[in-house]
Amino acid sequence: MTSDLHPWAADLSGLYAQVWTRLVRGVRDRRAPTRHPTLATVTPDGKPQARTVVLRAADKSTGTLDIHTDLQSSKVADLRATPFAALHVLDEAAHLQMRLEATVTILTGADVAATWAGFPDASRQSYGSLPAPGQPISQSLDYAKQPDAASFAVLRLTVQTIDAVHLGAHHRRARFDRDARWAGTWLAP
Amino acid sequence: MTSDLHPWAADLSGLYAQVWTRLVRGVRDRRAPTRHPTLATVTPDGKPQARTVVLRAADKSTGTLDIHTDLQSSKVADLRATPFAALHVLDEAAHLQMRLEATVTILTGADVAATWAGFPDASRQSYGSLPAPGQPISQSLDYAKQPDAASFAVLRLTVQTIDAVHLGAHHRRARFDRDARWAGTWLAP
Repeated sequence: MTSDLHPWAADLSGLYAQVWTRLVRGVRDRRAPTRHPTLATVTPDGKPQARTVVLRAADKSTGTLDIHTDLQSSKVADLRATPFAALHVLDEAAHLQMRLEATVTILTGADVAATWAGFPDASRQSYGSLPAPGQPISQSLDYAKQPDAASFAVLRLTVQTIDAVHLGAHHRRARFDRDARWAGTWLAP
Repeated sequence: MTSDLHPWAADLSGLYAQVWTRLVRGVRDRRAPTRHPTLATVTPDGKPQARTVVLRAADKSTGTLDIHTDLQSSKVADLRATPFAALHVLDEAAHLQMRLEATVTILTGADVAATWAGFPDASRQSYGSLPAPGQPISQSLDYAKQPDAASFAVLRLTVQTIDAVHLGAHHRRARFDRDARWAGTWLAP
């Protein structure tokens, strides 16, 4: 690959814009790598966890991302104990690794009622199951989907830092901080 | 998709075997999703981190995996403080999410000398750079690769649990524990 295959990687503002372009694309394009980031959290006993999530909203102006989840899932218990998440995406076509750190707010009930009301039945199937996600069962399909608004939560990630690595002929890496108004700093990769 | 597209997902031993088949494939096949898992760790101040790594060895009989790293990288500092990692792979063709928890040993110096000695020059370029990975630099390419055996480390992951989710017509999820000799338990997905 040539170093100018992705000219946006050569300057800080271009790299920052590219990260958000790709995140926003993930919300509406099921085939974009940013559709399915990996969300890392810390368990109440201090150990790391990581799982695939679906990106549901991305707003560059506020620097926020939304993920939907079942309130019974272990990631919610993790985030109640440690309200920080790392979000990771490797976009191979763009030769771009995105690593985001975020503070997380768990929205439930009245705060998410309008979102729930807008869901088709098929989407509601993902929230509410018996037994709860992660509980042992005797046979592989011994569970029932019981759509339940009370089981629906939105994880709102307020992005604090973005670490972007462009894997070109020469690797480039930069860090962007909310506290520095996203100005950006090059890092050794 | 039909529920029997992947018959191995219907029983615990088949699912467990499939996870290892895919991990072992990742070591030699650069295009396998298991070639580039996401490694999650906890920072010394208790926050989650996640980044892409390259799977270098996978041994089903011992339940261990190897990852190579620069000793200066932040993941090493994380693992010195909290010697646990979560490894995550989503294999979309297999409709399979693999989530592994592992204890981690950091091997350096004489313990990895034979591995280093076997590297071609091109591989050595990845270990040793000035300034160290993650340090601020003025321009994007203000760093030099200085291959250095003293910067090379192997992260040896001793897998403790495997959580496998098959995303078929009906989702199936199981957990396998080293302590239970990998017998496996179905979980509600």
